[in-house]
Amino acid sequence: MNKPADQSAFETPKVTTGPLPASRKVYTHPPQAPDLAVPHREIDLHPSAGEPPVPVYDTSGPYTDPSVTIHVEQGLARDRRDWVLERGNVEEYEGRDVKPEDNGGAEGKYLARQFPVRHKPLRRKPAAPAAVECSSSPCSMDMDPTWDHGQDLLTQYEYARAGIVTKEMIYVATRENLGRAAAHEDAAATIADGQSFGAHIPEYITPEFVRDEIAAGRAIIPANINHAELEPQIIGRNFLVKINANIGNSAVTSSVEEEVDKMVWAIRWGADNVMDLSTGRNIHNTREWIIRNSPVPIGTVPIYQALEKVNGVAEDLTWEIFRDTLIEQAEQGVDYFTIHAGVRLAYIHLTANRVTGIVSRGGSIMAKWMLAHHKESFLYTHFEEICDIMRTYDVSFSLGDGLRPGATADANDAAQFAELETLGELTKIAWAKGCQVMIEGPGHVPMHKIKINMDKQLRECGEAPFYTLGPLTTDIAPGYDHITSGIGAAMIGWFGTAMLCYVTPKEHLGLPDRDDVKVGVITYKLAAHAADLAKGHPTAHLRDDAVSRARFDFRWEDQFNLSLDPETARDFHDQTLPKDAHKVAHFCSMCGPKFCSMKITAEVREYAAGMSDNEKADMEKQAAAARAGMAEKSKEFMDKGGEIYLSESGEKREAID
Amino acid sequence: MNKPADQSAFETPKVTTGPLPASRKVYTHPPQAPDLAVPHREIDLHPSAGEPPVPVYDTSGPYTDPSVTIHVEQGLARDRRDWVLERGNVEEYEGRDVKPEDNGGAEGKYLARQFPVRHKPLRRKPAAPAAVECSSSPCSMDMDPTWDHGQDLLTQYEYARAGIVTKEMIYVATRENLGRAAAHEDAAATIADGQSFGAHIPEYITPEFVRDEIAAGRAIIPANINHAELEPQIIGRNFLVKINANIGNSAVTSSVEEEVDKMVWAIRWGADNVMDLSTGRNIHNTREWIIRNSPVPIGTVPIYQALEKVNGVAEDLTWEIFRDTLIEQAEQGVDYFTIHAGVRLAYIHLTANRVTGIVSRGGSIMAKWMLAHHKESFLYTHFEEICDIMRTYDVSFSLGDGLRPGATADANDAAQFAELETLGELTKIAWAKGCQVMIEGPGHVPMHKIKINMDKQLRECGEAPFYTLGPLTTDIAPGYDHITSGIGAAMIGWFGTAMLCYVTPKEHLGLPDRDDVKVGVITYKLAAHAADLAKGHPTAHLRDDAVSRARFDFRWEDQFNLSLDPETARDFHDQTLPKDAHKVAHFCSMCGPKFCSMKITAEVREYAAGMSDNEKADMEKQAAAARAGMAEKSKEFMDKGGEIYLSESGEKREAID
Repeated sequence: MNKPADQSAFETPKVTTGPLPASRKVYTHPPQAPDLAVPHREIDLHPSAGEPPVPVYDTSGPYTDPSVTIHVEQGLARDRRDWVLERGNVEEYEGRDVKPEDNGGAEGKYLARQFPVRHKPLRRKPAAPAAVECSSSPCSMDMDPTWDHGQDLLTQYEYARAGIVTKEMIYVATRENLGRAAAHEDAAATIADGQSFGAHIPEYITPEFVRDEIAAGRAIIPANINHAELEPQIIGRNFLVKINANIGNSAVTSSVEEEVDKMVWAIRWGADNVMDLSTGRNIHNTREWIIRNSPVPIGTVPIYQALEKVNGVAEDLTWEIFRDTLIEQAEQGVDYFTIHAGVRLAYIHLTANRVTGIVSRGGSIMAKWMLAHHKESFLYTHFEEICDIMRTYDVSFSLGDGLRPGATADANDAAQFAELETLGELTKIAWAKGCQVMIEGPGHVPMHKIKINMDKQLRECGEAPFYTLGPLTTDIAPGYDHITSGIGAAMIGWFGTAMLCYVTPKEHLGLPDRDDVKVGVITYKLAAHAADLAKGHPTAHLRDDAVSRARFDFRWEDQFNLSLDPETARDFHDQTLPKDAHKVAHFCSMCGPKFCSMKITAEVREYAAGMSDNEKADMEKQAAAARAGMAEKSKEFMDKGGEIYLSESGEKREAID
Repeated sequence: MNKPADQSAFETPKVTTGPLPASRKVYTHPPQAPDLAVPHREIDLHPSAGEPPVPVYDTSGPYTDPSVTIHVEQGLARDRRDWVLERGNVEEYEGRDVKPEDNGGAEGKYLARQFPVRHKPLRRKPAAPAAVECSSSPCSMDMDPTWDHGQDLLTQYEYARAGIVTKEMIYVATRENLGRAAAHEDAAATIADGQSFGAHIPEYITPEFVRDEIAAGRAIIPANINHAELEPQIIGRNFLVKINANIGNSAVTSSVEEEVDKMVWAIRWGADNVMDLSTGRNIHNTREWIIRNSPVPIGTVPIYQALEKVNGVAEDLTWEIFRDTLIEQAEQGVDYFTIHAGVRLAYIHLTANRVTGIVSRGGSIMAKWMLAHHKESFLYTHFEEICDIMRTYDVSFSLGDGLRPGATADANDAAQFAELETLGELTKIAWAKGCQVMIEGPGHVPMHKIKINMDKQLRECGEAPFYTLGPLTTDIAPGYDHITSGIGAAMIGWFGTAMLCYVTPKEHLGLPDRDDVKVGVITYKLAAHAADLAKGHPTAHLRDDAVSRARFDFRWEDQFNLSLDPETARDFHDQTLPKDAHKVAHFCSMCGPKFCSMKITAEVREYAAGMSDNEKADMEKQAAAARAGMAEKSKEFMDKGGEIYLSESGEKREAID
């Protein structure tokens, strides 16, 4: 156990609370489970709009609900524990003792304060030996003949495969609908036009649809049974595109307080989930504070902590240390683990001629281990045992891309794709074990190579959700890699990626501070939304259209409030036109008060409304006649000159394709 | 004439000069015209790299050349005047007097200082009547039978059609090659992989290739004969993608000094050209200062100034006032005019049901005029006279998209495409008149509708260069519209757009300041570069690869210096690791000194280098065997369970497409 520390020696984490401007938290109680309270946010518009409030997806948890008092030392309410307990098949137990190495041996004033409350963990009950042979024929899941018969269900995947809808499934279905009723009377909420590349997004999400998607492996609900504070969320390409924010202290800088604050800050601006990538000391305690206060799924890369336990010497890692770390983190409630089990000994030399070699920390840790021992990775050889641990707590896999390209020059190479193929194999093993799985993807990829990644991932990994970092579409803009990668993220999200891992402006240069986290989150939120729009998500356009109408009507406050970042929008406006009067003035700073295109458009509308059908037809006739004259002239030109131009070599220049 | 003003009453514009870090200006003297000095920038690397300097395209003009002394009151050197004069066919003349209304009637202390030097303008010599009938058969250009016979050539298009290579063509060809020799010995400078969507980018640009592209209408060199300070540049989809920065004072804010400084600032960071979108007073004098100090092409929207001349009352506009404005600006040396001649009376009512109507200022000015007079636009009815004026000075057309969508909801609608079709007709008229033409494009377009725009533009406008604003891919992120639009810009640049008009973070909210201009330029520079990479531009990847190698080698200074914004990259790094020692340390702030993936990769290389072919083969055999075992297991799973899963309705879930 960590030494007791004087509580007063530590700062109580301060986090940002309170609603966003003009916003109310609204809870829906789904008919299938009226005890659930599923949040979304409604943005109220100015009465002059004559429009209902605009519903938006809300990741911010109780922090933006003024009726909830936040006590960071107590953590959030643990409602979800009941959902898990009432399903049965779990047992409470003492759990693993915290060891000094869990916090990197930090002592005294260097040891971060323990979270004040200790909750006993839950785990899957050891399965009773099957009393009778499986009688269904063919047995649909005989690699583990118990769980699909309802005796030993625990993971969301297991329940889905067994045809059972969980509360988590009801919750995420309701959440995706943003409070819309099943009858979806809202005429605007129809399938929008879009190009979905094979995604099948229904007009209305039912719990049964969620179950089917999870059972097919196409979606996951990262939801460790020990993360009782969770507001569940679904990740899959037939749902809204999600984004992830990375936080975490490092050996060089930052504290527990900063990391808890960063988590709350990231979800305030729209991070759907958060990865704690802490390194250095105090990893265990930092994580406990984060999870107990997090309404969103928390992911980790357990090998990072395992490495700290062997003082950063990769070759000293063992399966036992790694295994113990998995249990430590699973008991705390981590919702998904990045496991770099696809980095195999045989692939290492494929990276030797790369411009930037292996850039994944996890990938290079394992490469170093394998080289030192000249043995296959223990993540690969012990993969089934890893599955057994993860299914004990319903920790989802995020199969790591340890060989992702770290430069556009290395994109889509043999090493990257060899690993992806292995991840496909591992996906099927994990499914057979009853685990939920998503797949991590690159990285640095020029635009013309992005779709190949998506298509190959879907094919190799049986449509398991893809979770990509960017990708960055060029390497030449350090300081702007949220943008180089936002381009790639929007595109791959459109093509089918289910979750986008954000990149901040500090990427490649330093650790993100609060401002960087916000810029990263907003950038990825807009990229994910652009993807939803392009896929034809039925309700994605409602918010765009509301902003556009506000813009057209000079409802400045509405435009700010509807935007992803109302503070920045308002601030930018005020830099040019600070007076309050300008927030209602029917002009803006770009064109000034004398002339305004939007004002003129209002006149156009009046005019068009006054036109008879005859007048319209007449007008089109006139236009056609004038155009015919022009067309004749241009034809003459093209006949005489335009088409006969030859290049010097005498070849006719090629026309467009 | 404007009243004389006391010079001391005005601030001398201060502009940023001096080279970028580790950068030298290098001038190439092309063998075809050794008197030309064509600039590019070379970035020196640390000696430990063992690499030659990295050449990059340089838009910054003499401001970054320490050997040039800048006198903003004198303007830049006017070398190009000789190129124009030596070709003949031009005459110097007195030019139009500056009228009070040219500066919006500003007087006294409100009148911006006149540029201290006055240059007499040049114009096309009136053509001698053709002495003989055209004898070539078929006459390739009989709509204007003089110019294609070498008697009356003036525009770059006319010279190109006549098969003549101008100094401007030699200049831009040399410039595009970044100082590479014709023999292109550099092995790296081979055609990169990419997807070009029908663009044909050669390995090496020759002046003849430039001429052919201009003659085909596929590229333009915006180069008014009165912009003698110009360093010419080519815009076309078979060349590097260019970007534009908009500046300009408005009725609400900003001064001459700020605008000159913004221009110099914008080109320092990579703006290939600049549009002066000034409104309000002092338009004439502001523009004169800008052009006399601009090495990049300057574009304007003449209807903005014309509107000021009638006190902002659109219906008071006349063809005569507009015509006079064209001549005023052409004499000053504006290189291209946005002309919204495609906004026709018959199209106006098509915008009535739009979410945001007409958002183009030019488009709505003309709509208002047409409605007031119930007449076809004078830009359309006088289009040939406009051509005659523009060909007198070689002002290029930028055919404006006055009906572009101002919201994603309005993208690709009937109004937008009706106008685009008309722009196609007008393109051919302008070519027949000997003018250079590019086409402006939207606007706000969700991702799945972007390529349709590009394809239609190429088809309708005979492959004339496309010049698009963004497009913005979602409307929900005011304050971040450089990013919402940077996504669309990178994509449409890849698909074939020749020039991207930047969007700053202030878009929709206020006027950009210096910082916003920089962020807009860098964002668009990276988008254009991402497009070049994806198109397979033969040398685009060289800079990416140099950055990646620097990153891998921990050459922090090189990484900063090679980036688009060295100042920001360095600043971000120093926020976490400020010590100078960290700039050479072989680790970075993300992982700390104990563990580093790049360090491990270096070990992987040593390892791979030591492997024999037998060892490699052996390793692959082992891997294959292990994988086969995994594959069998997963097959077993899929056979038994994975494939038999049915959705509730009994249908087999569709596989990926």
